[in-house]
Amino acid sequence: MTSPQLPADGKLVRSQGVTAPLGFRAAGIAAGIKASGKPDLALVFNEGPEYAAAGVFTSNQVKAAPVLWSQQVLKTGRLRAVVLNSGGANACTGPGGFQDTHATAEKLAEALSNWGTETGAGEIAVCSTGLIGDRLPMDKLLPGITEIVHEMAGGLSGGADAAHAIMTTDTVPKEAAFHAEGKWNVGGMAKGAGMLAPSLATMLVVLTTDAVATPEQLDAALRKATKYTFDRLDVDGSCSTNDTVLLLANGASEVTPTQDELEAAVFAVCDDLAAQLMADAEGVTKRVEITVTGAATEDEALTVARAVARDSLVKTALFGSDPNWGRVLAAVGIAPVTLDPNRIAVSFNGNPVCVDSVGAPGAREVDLSGEDIAVLIELNVGDGEAMVRTTDLSHDYVEENSAYSS
Amino acid sequence: MTSPQLPADGKLVRSQGVTAPLGFRAAGIAAGIKASGKPDLALVFNEGPEYAAAGVFTSNQVKAAPVLWSQQVLKTGRLRAVVLNSGGANACTGPGGFQDTHATAEKLAEALSNWGTETGAGEIAVCSTGLIGDRLPMDKLLPGITEIVHEMAGGLSGGADAAHAIMTTDTVPKEAAFHAEGKWNVGGMAKGAGMLAPSLATMLVVLTTDAVATPEQLDAALRKATKYTFDRLDVDGSCSTNDTVLLLANGASEVTPTQDELEAAVFAVCDDLAAQLMADAEGVTKRVEITVTGAATEDEALTVARAVARDSLVKTALFGSDPNWGRVLAAVGIAPVTLDPNRIAVSFNGNPVCVDSVGAPGAREVDLSGEDIAVLIELNVGDGEAMVRTTDLSHDYVEENSAYSS
Repeated sequence: MTSPQLPADGKLVRSQGVTAPLGFRAAGIAAGIKASGKPDLALVFNEGPEYAAAGVFTSNQVKAAPVLWSQQVLKTGRLRAVVLNSGGANACTGPGGFQDTHATAEKLAEALSNWGTETGAGEIAVCSTGLIGDRLPMDKLLPGITEIVHEMAGGLSGGADAAHAIMTTDTVPKEAAFHAEGKWNVGGMAKGAGMLAPSLATMLVVLTTDAVATPEQLDAALRKATKYTFDRLDVDGSCSTNDTVLLLANGASEVTPTQDELEAAVFAVCDDLAAQLMADAEGVTKRVEITVTGAATEDEALTVARAVARDSLVKTALFGSDPNWGRVLAAVGIAPVTLDPNRIAVSFNGNPVCVDSVGAPGAREVDLSGEDIAVLIELNVGDGEAMVRTTDLSHDYVEENSAYSS
Repeated sequence: MTSPQLPADGKLVRSQGVTAPLGFRAAGIAAGIKASGKPDLALVFNEGPEYAAAGVFTSNQVKAAPVLWSQQVLKTGRLRAVVLNSGGANACTGPGGFQDTHATAEKLAEALSNWGTETGAGEIAVCSTGLIGDRLPMDKLLPGITEIVHEMAGGLSGGADAAHAIMTTDTVPKEAAFHAEGKWNVGGMAKGAGMLAPSLATMLVVLTTDAVATPEQLDAALRKATKYTFDRLDVDGSCSTNDTVLLLANGASEVTPTQDELEAAVFAVCDDLAAQLMADAEGVTKRVEITVTGAATEDEALTVARAVARDSLVKTALFGSDPNWGRVLAAVGIAPVTLDPNRIAVSFNGNPVCVDSVGAPGAREVDLSGEDIAVLIELNVGDGEAMVRTTDLSHDYVEENSAYSS
């Protein structure tokens, strides 16, 4: 599998999100789940005529109740709605927590049915984000479900409100939409970055499209896009209990794109959302792209890129704008891959700092004071390539993730 | 393989190091390798009558020149001396760097032979620690070799000087010695902690014993001891290009301990030095022991303990004295091992905070304000156990490892 290509035609915008495609509504409200009173409940609703859907979930073995629920629901390949809450992860909450998720879906099904859209709980995905280990305040959440359906019913588009309501320590909402030659569309919203937030968790992404597509086509497009975007955004190696990426399609445009076109459009939106997540990661002062070329295989290139992206000594050096290529080589050497330890080359922002595993002239003087740092590592053993996005390791990261800040 | 037992008899002291056993001399001087003028050259010399030796080296595929040299030399199972320098790692320095290591050993062989002890370069191990990527100042180092042999010749014991001269950002020298019922002895010195130092690297350990033992017996004892001590000291998951642990035996006590006795004594010294390394790790404000029980195998217990020990979110929470057990569960869930996600139990300093993967009453009020934190994770799937020592992730870690401090 190679990386999907960006679409040849069409237009990507950040001013629109999940309601950019035809036939999707959304809303976001403050239901009182967060003590701060900020928005904490979001809804994305598919008006049809089709209800195809696919999802990708956390690889963590410890999965939150809403993940277990949504995985189960998605076996049908159908979704009418997604309800998302911030202010609590509903993870490590036992059977009671699962019942809370079930009750949330039941309540939404009832509210939607009352509104005139006959819906079952089994057509509703649930996502949660926040502190692990506490039960959700159902006395706030359930009335909020009724309210948010009313809110959604009142307006045609609440995509921006929904994107706001899923924020935890995000400083800005993340939305993107791709308009395929004005004929069909893909929209999306996202929150979080890996598992970065203080005492909080989770990357949540909801994507929508008005293209005509089967659940199998959506699944293939979603897996391919996430593999090359969200899966390669590696801020601290953590993978939360709640990570969820959903893609809903309703066919409202009556356009049936080819699989390649669908994959390209979904990839474009995911790629842009991933870049937005990196830029807003907590404590970030540098946006870093680690590219590895010349590995034995693509998988080995990815292993090396991740090893470097997760290395605390590399990340603190980048925070200090220090072109410390020796730490990069040490991190590469730990990776369990085929290496020729004498033929590694490294460049920072296009400046060679290490050739054949030995320092290049002027390497210690390379200027890394800007916000963007591109690290290129050439292994010289094969043709495998991969890129991982990461950030530096800063004082703010420590501050925001230690209890002092909470 | 199970963990070696601590010796039933005998005495462990921290006031003595590599010269505690009979027939070992040592010295430490300032040769001018460090710009600061601090001590930077150390020598450990075996007076015989035997010269058995064993070594354990970094698993990093990118190995420094002195590691490549010492691995080669140790194939004979014999060592007469170890020369160690701080102020430069001599890693990623190409063939020229290897020639520098060779020249260092040749120079020491010549100086020792001039002193009346016929020695070949092939009987000398070399260790280096410092910044990766720069050549060593041989115009300072080679005259220093002559000087340190004179220094050693002048006194019977320079163990403490040697322990000082290998320090980089260590704040205290690390020495330990075990006296086996007053009959035979094991001594040791160490520097570093994983790969923690700013722009620097390396854990270096030299152990000596006056017991009678073959290279094979030493090798077995050393591998067993390091596996359960230095290998399980995991500050940031980094493994330097220069890590070296050497054990030299001269039989001067004329005592031949059993293999169990030898292993117990070597383990005792390594265990104590590992604890000293953890306590002096840069930026440490908490000493943390992660113990995993009930894993399917010992290896899986170790995998889980390492995953938790390396998790930035767990480490920042511990820095903040925050009993955030949810992050521990999330870190456990990432480990590629057999888990029952609903049966994990966690305690902090003996206080249960999570039972059957759900929070225990009072979990958020557990006091972790002290310097020592014991994390116990019970997986409830088997009998495998393992313990890893680590530290918190603090502001000082970021400060000392970013270029701002250098």
